Amino acid sequence: MKKAIKSSFGIFLLLFTNSIIGHAQSRPPNFIVIFADDLGYGDLSCYGNPTILTPNLDRMAAEGMRFTQFYVGAGICTPSRSALLTGRLAIRTGIHAGARGTPSVFGIHSASGLPLKEITIAEMLKTRGYATGIIGKWHLGHLPQFLPRKQGFDYWFGIPYSNDMGKITTTRFDPENPTATAPRADAPPLPLYRNDSVIEEEPDQHFLTKRYTEEAIKFIRSNKGKPFFLYYANNFPHVPLYASLAFEGKSKRGLYGDVVAELDWSVGQVLKTLRELNIDKNTLVIFTSDNGPWLTQLDHGGSAGMLYGGKHSTYEGGMREPAIFWWPGKIKAGIISSALATTMDFLPTFERLSKATMPKDLILDGMDISDLLFSKKDKVRDLVYYYFNADLYAVRKGPWKAHFTTHTGFSKEAPVTYQIPLLYNLEVDPSEKYNVAKQHPDIVEDIRKEYERQKAIIPAPPELIKMLPGKKSGNESGNEH
Amino acid sequence: MKKAIKSSFGIFLLLFTNSIIGHAQSRPPNFIVIFADDLGYGDLSCYGNPTILTPNLDRMAAEGMRFTQFYVGAGICTPSRSALLTGRLAIRTGIHAGARGTPSVFGIHSASGLPLKEITIAEMLKTRGYATGIIGKWHLGHLPQFLPRKQGFDYWFGIPYSNDMGKITTTRFDPENPTATAPRADAPPLPLYRNDSVIEEEPDQHFLTKRYTEEAIKFIRSNKGKPFFLYYANNFPHVPLYASLAFEGKSKRGLYGDVVAELDWSVGQVLKTLRELNIDKNTLVIFTSDNGPWLTQLDHGGSAGMLYGGKHSTYEGGMREPAIFWWPGKIKAGIISSALATTMDFLPTFERLSKATMPKDLILDGMDISDLLFSKKDKVRDLVYYYFNADLYAVRKGPWKAHFTTHTGFSKEAPVTYQIPLLYNLEVDPSEKYNVAKQHPDIVEDIRKEYERQKAIIPAPPELIKMLPGKKSGNESGNEH
Repeated sequence: MKKAIKSSFGIFLLLFTNSIIGHAQSRPPNFIVIFADDLGYGDLSCYGNPTILTPNLDRMAAEGMRFTQFYVGAGICTPSRSALLTGRLAIRTGIHAGARGTPSVFGIHSASGLPLKEITIAEMLKTRGYATGIIGKWHLGHLPQFLPRKQGFDYWFGIPYSNDMGKITTTRFDPENPTATAPRADAPPLPLYRNDSVIEEEPDQHFLTKRYTEEAIKFIRSNKGKPFFLYYANNFPHVPLYASLAFEGKSKRGLYGDVVAELDWSVGQVLKTLRELNIDKNTLVIFTSDNGPWLTQLDHGGSAGMLYGGKHSTYEGGMREPAIFWWPGKIKAGIISSALATTMDFLPTFERLSKATMPKDLILDGMDISDLLFSKKDKVRDLVYYYFNADLYAVRKGPWKAHFTTHTGFSKEAPVTYQIPLLYNLEVDPSEKYNVAKQHPDIVEDIRKEYERQKAIIPAPPELIKMLPGKKSGNESGNEH
Repeated sequence: MKKAIKSSFGIFLLLFTNSIIGHAQSRPPNFIVIFADDLGYGDLSCYGNPTILTPNLDRMAAEGMRFTQFYVGAGICTPSRSALLTGRLAIRTGIHAGARGTPSVFGIHSASGLPLKEITIAEMLKTRGYATGIIGKWHLGHLPQFLPRKQGFDYWFGIPYSNDMGKITTTRFDPENPTATAPRADAPPLPLYRNDSVIEEEPDQHFLTKRYTEEAIKFIRSNKGKPFFLYYANNFPHVPLYASLAFEGKSKRGLYGDVVAELDWSVGQVLKTLRELNIDKNTLVIFTSDNGPWLTQLDHGGSAGMLYGGKHSTYEGGMREPAIFWWPGKIKAGIISSALATTMDFLPTFERLSKATMPKDLILDGMDISDLLFSKKDKVRDLVYYYFNADLYAVRKGPWKAHFTTHTGFSKEAPVTYQIPLLYNLEVDPSEKYNVAKQHPDIVEDIRKEYERQKAIIPAPPELIKMLPGKKSGNESGNEH
């Protein structure tokens, strides 16, 4: 499973360090990243949802640190996941669409994947002797040569892309026919993998969260004797929505609420397992989601709370997510942090905490946020970039966000580019209601400099446009997955 | 201070019961109602605000019960306050405007007040020997015969109406002149009362919350030896916004956040005092607000979170409020309740808990919710009515809300009345986005029956339209206070 890593000197140093002094030091911490799919900023009790009860995540927040200005690397699945695993923006890794109209995520006819030369968190941690597992959704290339075990994961149980890429694409609400689903005849059956083999086709999705939970617990129990990294990427609450019998019909919020409640239960089971095994104090657990709510799914999509926009939008609702960090004894209990942070910060943070070393010449967009987590600093990063495919649309600097281009994200309408960008103070005006560009020309110009600097990055060749021979996009229902 | 109460037999029974067995029983509990002004559903950390930190209210919620579907009696100040204090809708007490265009709240030229024949919580509790105090805003008639001490309160320190009814009407954000305020020359100076006397004119509002807090603490300390009722109705975050030096400029949310942070501090001081005096276990404390955020104040107004609409609207954002109930040892810690409840439920709940008795022939709109608070029931009420002035606009029954009429509330536009009302499932669709009336004609018809039944109530003669000789409305900036 090993592959060439750019800096062979770095690797040598790592292995050397590890073998000579590794066992004399305290064991590096375990890392668990729990990644929801299409969960909105307003979908948990602790983020203000009135009818979705999430007692386990609320408790996790009360025992840990809850972020209120936490971002993903892109407002849609595939580039968001690549950004998390590599610490790099999609434009650097090629996980962005080319021209507009091409798919924004890997589909069933995609011929490519996350380039193997990229270093994932799993690969980085392997150099420090970690056991690495992914339970759930991959979505970084479904051909054999791009699957998780080619990218540093020892173990995989899950689905190679979104749960709507098999025969059942949606359970979305249709006012004329509320129970309608739209089976898709031409797609291959949705495959469920264990490691490199398909073990089931079109698995009953009612039991997906239950099975993922069992697999996550099994992975933790099996690897409790060494440091481990578990990337638990649940397919829900992405449509089609399914909950097991214990949850179906139980939430006041309807099926969407049932699904989030089961996800919440699943998080509770993971934390309970850590406590039972007495490894909670040596494990950093992070919960977040890949992008904002899929608003066109109506009541089968979530809510961004007071934020404007949803999935694929570069307004806040598309890219700001619930994020809870939990590490008893290391992260203080009950902290609400409004510091800026992103999923790309996971890799550099884990790098420091595990004492791994990434090649020095590799450009990372993530930053080590451990000083934030351990309350040594109030602030680590000042800048956030908002991309739509390969195009930089907006830049946040401190409290200020300037939109240079906006686009609804779903419609066929052309993007709108502004001569004077829209300027919002996100800390005063989180809903992006009051454009104050006219009042603050100096701030606009300051952010414009950051924008031009960032725009100068030449995107890597786009991987998302490569299709299998004779195929176009495999996303019949649009480029929104 | 006494006045005729409708049922003299009821009073006789009360006094009799009180004198014979009162001292043999355990002392009835203290009640504290902390009432904010114009605070929105999304303005506290524990309701999902990203940049307003409210650690004291968050702790109060963690130690108590936080409601997510809690309503006020009206979407604007005066009728909301009368509903809280009497347990009755404004149409029953006359605290509603007449025809549209008349003021919706008592203003500086009003000639009337809450009718003295109405029984307030304070009057009810006086029959049980309670000490009663109001710290803060009254707004139920500013002429001497209508002030708090005519309505059952032993002590008052505060302002007779809104804090924008003196010389300074607003600190609202003006894009052309961000620090602008609009002094009003013709209004009498804003009076600050202690009991029946004006002790200051145009008090420096920077120190209002600080002074109210000191007064609240003093009231609690002075009355710790007997049961007490404290109605602490802070004037903020209504505009004009002012915070003391310790808070000004401290919140990332700007001045509005500073003001809410000081309010949060004030709540913390009250709870701390109860703990110090060791009477926390005998005191029910409730925190809520009078109506939704005043959206036209831009960043000087709050946020209704994911709810639609604000102050004066009969959409959820106008009438659904944060509400936290706290009573250590009696209310279980950390409960999030999505049961329906309203401010009108305070009076019947206090009635039961204090063993007071209201006249049996008096129609109350409130219900005893103590079984909800003590986790004996999941649900007490099924119906909520949404009035705009004297007109019933919408009815909620269980999860379903039907809008028969809607109106922006601020503009001069005429209200829109629907032949087929708009129907929303508020538990699935809290943002009132997806009208499902066509899919559920049976539910529409069922709610229509409740609507017709409620519409049949003949409103009491309106008190809000009575003006001093030669005066019209005293609200120069509109009817929105």
